[in-house]
Amino acid sequence: MNTWARALAGWMLAALCLPVWSTPVEDGYDLWLRYRALPAAQQAAVAARARRIVAVAPASPTLQAAVAELQRGVAGLTGRQPDVAAQPGDGALVLATPATAPAGLALPRPALAELGREGYLLRSLRWQGRAVTLIAANSDVGLLYGSFAWLRAAQTGADLARLDQRSAPRLALRLLNHWDNLDRTVERGYAGASIWDWWKLPDLRDARYVDYARANASLGINGTVLNNVNAKADSLTAPFLAKAAALADVLRPYGIRVYLSARFSAPVELGGLKTADPLDPAVRAWWQAKAGEIYRAIPDFGGFLVKANSEGQPGPQDYGRNHADGANMLAAALAPHGGVVMWRAFVYAPDASDRAAQGFAEFQPLDGRFAPNVIVQVKNGAIDFQPREPFHPLFGAMPHTPLALEVQITKEYLGFSTHLVHLGPLFEEVLRADTRRQPQGATVARQIKAMAGVANIGTDRNWCGSHFDCANWYAFGRLAWDTDLAAAAVAREWVQQTFTRAPAAVQAITALMLDSREAVVDYMTPLGLHHLMGTGHHHGPAPWVDNLERADWNPVYFHRAGRDGIGFDRSPRGSNAVSQYAPELAALWANPATTPEPLLLWFHHLPWSHRMASGRTLWAELVAHYDRGVERVATMRRGWDAVRTDVDAQRHAEVAAYLAVQEAEARWWRDACLAYFQSVSGLPLPAGSRAPAETLEAYKARRFNFAPGRGG
Amino acid sequence: MNTWARALAGWMLAALCLPVWSTPVEDGYDLWLRYRALPAAQQAAVAARARRIVAVAPASPTLQAAVAELQRGVAGLTGRQPDVAAQPGDGALVLATPATAPAGLALPRPALAELGREGYLLRSLRWQGRAVTLIAANSDVGLLYGSFAWLRAAQTGADLARLDQRSAPRLALRLLNHWDNLDRTVERGYAGASIWDWWKLPDLRDARYVDYARANASLGINGTVLNNVNAKADSLTAPFLAKAAALADVLRPYGIRVYLSARFSAPVELGGLKTADPLDPAVRAWWQAKAGEIYRAIPDFGGFLVKANSEGQPGPQDYGRNHADGANMLAAALAPHGGVVMWRAFVYAPDASDRAAQGFAEFQPLDGRFAPNVIVQVKNGAIDFQPREPFHPLFGAMPHTPLALEVQITKEYLGFSTHLVHLGPLFEEVLRADTRRQPQGATVARQIKAMAGVANIGTDRNWCGSHFDCANWYAFGRLAWDTDLAAAAVAREWVQQTFTRAPAAVQAITALMLDSREAVVDYMTPLGLHHLMGTGHHHGPAPWVDNLERADWNPVYFHRAGRDGIGFDRSPRGSNAVSQYAPELAALWANPATTPEPLLLWFHHLPWSHRMASGRTLWAELVAHYDRGVERVATMRRGWDAVRTDVDAQRHAEVAAYLAVQEAEARWWRDACLAYFQSVSGLPLPAGSRAPAETLEAYKARRFNFAPGRGG
Repeated sequence: MNTWARALAGWMLAALCLPVWSTPVEDGYDLWLRYRALPAAQQAAVAARARRIVAVAPASPTLQAAVAELQRGVAGLTGRQPDVAAQPGDGALVLATPATAPAGLALPRPALAELGREGYLLRSLRWQGRAVTLIAANSDVGLLYGSFAWLRAAQTGADLARLDQRSAPRLALRLLNHWDNLDRTVERGYAGASIWDWWKLPDLRDARYVDYARANASLGINGTVLNNVNAKADSLTAPFLAKAAALADVLRPYGIRVYLSARFSAPVELGGLKTADPLDPAVRAWWQAKAGEIYRAIPDFGGFLVKANSEGQPGPQDYGRNHADGANMLAAALAPHGGVVMWRAFVYAPDASDRAAQGFAEFQPLDGRFAPNVIVQVKNGAIDFQPREPFHPLFGAMPHTPLALEVQITKEYLGFSTHLVHLGPLFEEVLRADTRRQPQGATVARQIKAMAGVANIGTDRNWCGSHFDCANWYAFGRLAWDTDLAAAAVAREWVQQTFTRAPAAVQAITALMLDSREAVVDYMTPLGLHHLMGTGHHHGPAPWVDNLERADWNPVYFHRAGRDGIGFDRSPRGSNAVSQYAPELAALWANPATTPEPLLLWFHHLPWSHRMASGRTLWAELVAHYDRGVERVATMRRGWDAVRTDVDAQRHAEVAAYLAVQEAEARWWRDACLAYFQSVSGLPLPAGSRAPAETLEAYKARRFNFAPGRGG
Repeated sequence: MNTWARALAGWMLAALCLPVWSTPVEDGYDLWLRYRALPAAQQAAVAARARRIVAVAPASPTLQAAVAELQRGVAGLTGRQPDVAAQPGDGALVLATPATAPAGLALPRPALAELGREGYLLRSLRWQGRAVTLIAANSDVGLLYGSFAWLRAAQTGADLARLDQRSAPRLALRLLNHWDNLDRTVERGYAGASIWDWWKLPDLRDARYVDYARANASLGINGTVLNNVNAKADSLTAPFLAKAAALADVLRPYGIRVYLSARFSAPVELGGLKTADPLDPAVRAWWQAKAGEIYRAIPDFGGFLVKANSEGQPGPQDYGRNHADGANMLAAALAPHGGVVMWRAFVYAPDASDRAAQGFAEFQPLDGRFAPNVIVQVKNGAIDFQPREPFHPLFGAMPHTPLALEVQITKEYLGFSTHLVHLGPLFEEVLRADTRRQPQGATVARQIKAMAGVANIGTDRNWCGSHFDCANWYAFGRLAWDTDLAAAAVAREWVQQTFTRAPAAVQAITALMLDSREAVVDYMTPLGLHHLMGTGHHHGPAPWVDNLERADWNPVYFHRAGRDGIGFDRSPRGSNAVSQYAPELAALWANPATTPEPLLLWFHHLPWSHRMASGRTLWAELVAHYDRGVERVATMRRGWDAVRTDVDAQRHAEVAAYLAVQEAEARWWRDACLAYFQSVSGLPLPAGSRAPAETLEAYKARRFNFAPGRGG
């Protein structure tokens, strides 16, 4: 073949491979609200149930948002946008609230009565002789949530002709916490800059804010804290309140209220006062005036989130007061306006013996002393968002205090936005944890009034830094709405809406997601180990670090590995932190023999020769877990590769590239940790286990000078 | 009407207003490469000229990119993607280079010979009895540029049946300079974070990099400096070279080479040497080894950009050497590999009398002493990217040294990404400035070998922080490719491709763009004033500032306003900086009577009573200019409002909101500056001129704690 014919052959081949120009770009921006055209047969089925929209409810921006979403969704799925109509027809979607439902529309009023302000029901029924789908609620926000639920049903292949769903949230507050700084950096953010373009606000509003609102409304997230818990007092100044007010205006129709992190020393920094003592009348007056100013700007402002006397943040203890004094002072300022104070229990004193015991020690004695509009916000575990932690002992131990569960959606310790780690299982694990504080069934989920997730959202086009990281936002929202949902079901929903409905592929993708949490536990911190990561940025393994300013920041503090063994003794023979749990649990966890192996080294310091249930020694078991973690990632990669033809090429390739990095980093974690543990134990690797690829010194020498997430 | 019928009426109205779901989102991401479907009649005309693509050139990724772009563009414009074919047919697009053109295709070889490596020609002709469009070039890069030119012709309504264009760039290097830091902040960046996701590179490559490459290739930009001139030595370490190499791989097919800003002290910081003296053999050897390392990673690496002995950056003067010593040392390291050193002339010594005279004073004596692969990079003016500056005196004064013109695309001093200021006129003004150093026609454009633009690109969806800011990227590229283009024609092209081809709207939008530069001159720094902006962030007016660490950072240093008058005397009676220009110009600008009024206060200190050409006093003229600046913005707003029906609603509303902010800020500039000048002059405002809205003290008290662009 001559040159140009050969060239031509190349082009024709390339042309065949070129994406059809009219296929929507799958860049992740549409999240789980993609509304991609269904196959023709399914299009007809959905279109038949959404021929028109009849809204018999008072006009409001929220109802407008619900109708718009239904139109957008149906148009995308079926190619035809349903009109808004006055009269029902066959296949109409009817949105109704009791107040305005017309005669002849048999609203199931008893059912509705139980749904509260935010709940909804979906029901297939007949009205005026037509087969319609009723989306009913007591408020327009409920109709919005119901509309999203209907769209979820449509996207996941439910039988839209036979709907009968009822759902209402048990937790009143379901919040995102953005650790976004006012300079647009995001602490522990791995998805670009803050999505809040502070400089351009309030006059210039990014169109993205609306899509943020839609995504959160689709999950039932009803509040967002805009700024970092390591707060700058500036967030409470007039210019920033105006910016927050602008955001509140955009989010309000979607049922989302805004909150702000408040710096406790603001009276000094902004008000020029000499003190921020919560008992000082001038300070109290300052906060009352500030609250008035805030509520004039944002009438439905949610309230404050406060990190005080923790990691250098100012607080009431600076003045010899306690957490209740501080929280109650702010609560008094907000109570007349209906606001809440979410006061974080993430504290640990520098001179204490066990960091894990500090939160309970400082807060439990204050049970019952907080004002009713204070919520004490407690991390899922007593250390800090590790791959696995036992539930925080405060859950169940403060029956007279409203509590919030704080989980981390962003993966500070779990591979940033590079590693695929689905957190639904982690959220489910803590929600279903039995505190044994009350009669059977006293799970963590039943101890809380609110749930907060540290957001993983930024300016990246795909919102969260990777496609699968968005599933963690999704899982958080769905589980906050209904703490009884199963993580597996939630993951499956997400896959069907985000990637594909092909059953085998859904099964395969869901499986790799559900296995990923245990994978990261295994390749980072198995058997109850915790806090082994690199200094500052928290990237990569650094179990050797022992030289930080505070002992309880050092990895060695947490694993205590030496020639004799490994693990942190929290039994009565050690720090006795187990005693902070219900007596039944304390007794179980005080004894290695009755401690679940996933928590073994959280509660016990054991010799390397300790015999495990498998028959292996602790050391061999540890190595086996690290090896299994790496193998799990390899399995995830094979699982993803197998669904290549079921998902779009762009995202398949992107995820595959991320998984390749994850596998390499999992190996690195495994190799560096085992090299280190070998160095302190003096033990050889079990036969058949591969030696670390590099020397311990090489691992120690690695530097990551520009790791993301160190904002503010 | 009962409640629900009333509600319904509202919904029907709202539904009518809802955007049709299938209209492409106009979020600015597609820049000027939108390829939106043309009206039916025009579709046929374009489709008739692009029925198929015949590529008779050697296969290469670059040719692939050209073909893909043509397919994408034609598909978008006409609804039909042309196939790649072996044989021509009527209406084929034929891409050919001399090396592989088949017999019978009459390539205009003499014309091609003049086009060099990057040039192209477009010609309507007949081949094998068919009417085809020939896109011919000497290389695949030329074919890529030619393809973009054809698409530009198609998008701007040229007669595609009668094409006869020939174009080749005169400047060999046409570069973007990103002031992007390794932590993803962008110095003087107002469009979000750095688009380079350093952390994820090299293994994970954002799809956006390809669109960046396409946009730049469409303009003929052929190089990009990835990192800030205030460089971190880390940019030259192996991990970052790998990241740069990954970017180079993505950009290479689009004709774009990567460059890096190099920190002069890298031998000390990275190599552990005791010195970075450019004459030290160990230092020379270190750079040679580093160059070898770089070229092994990136075989077509473009070279270094260096900021040395300027604003605290290390450099050869730290060792008693001069700029040529430093540049030549680096040049020697890169020369064997074909690389260049772009050495910036932006220097000003702290103890000098006139900052504007420093660059010339340090660099002109070195003319002819730089190695051939050194390019001295000179800002358009002698201060720093002000709304207007006379051209830098070095242009024309270093005939034996290759020079580059550095302009700022990002609007550090011109309203960030909020104010609409089209810079095409500014670029044109400096390119066409007559240096009078040689026989008639010795414009700045003829003195340079390269052009560099400090980029305004970031992670914002619309790339540049606002829609109209992208026109500055466009204008830079087009004028770098062809320095003889008229700014007005370039602006018109951009409008037609970006917004609309409706003639009246094109005229109106182009007009407001072309007036915007003079508007910002008027409302910020008229009549040759300069450097009056706020400290550090450079946002807003602060002509009163007089307390900065260096005198030549203070606004008062530059305007010298007092009871007696205003302006900086650069005549022989003052700093005599005029003498750095050609004698003809020096003579003209030494005399206020022969100094163009737009430059008057750049070169002269004059009494407030100085009589202007208008008959007004200088003071009254100054006030008139400030007033006119604000009025120009109001006119721009009206002009934009009038095209409401010609552009999409989303972008129209966004731009309108930005213009409202710009008008308010223009008023603020005018009010604050006049309040200050009144305070020092003691003069009343002319009759009929509105008093400033606030007091001078109020303007002085404004603080902007979190202004963007202060990265690194």
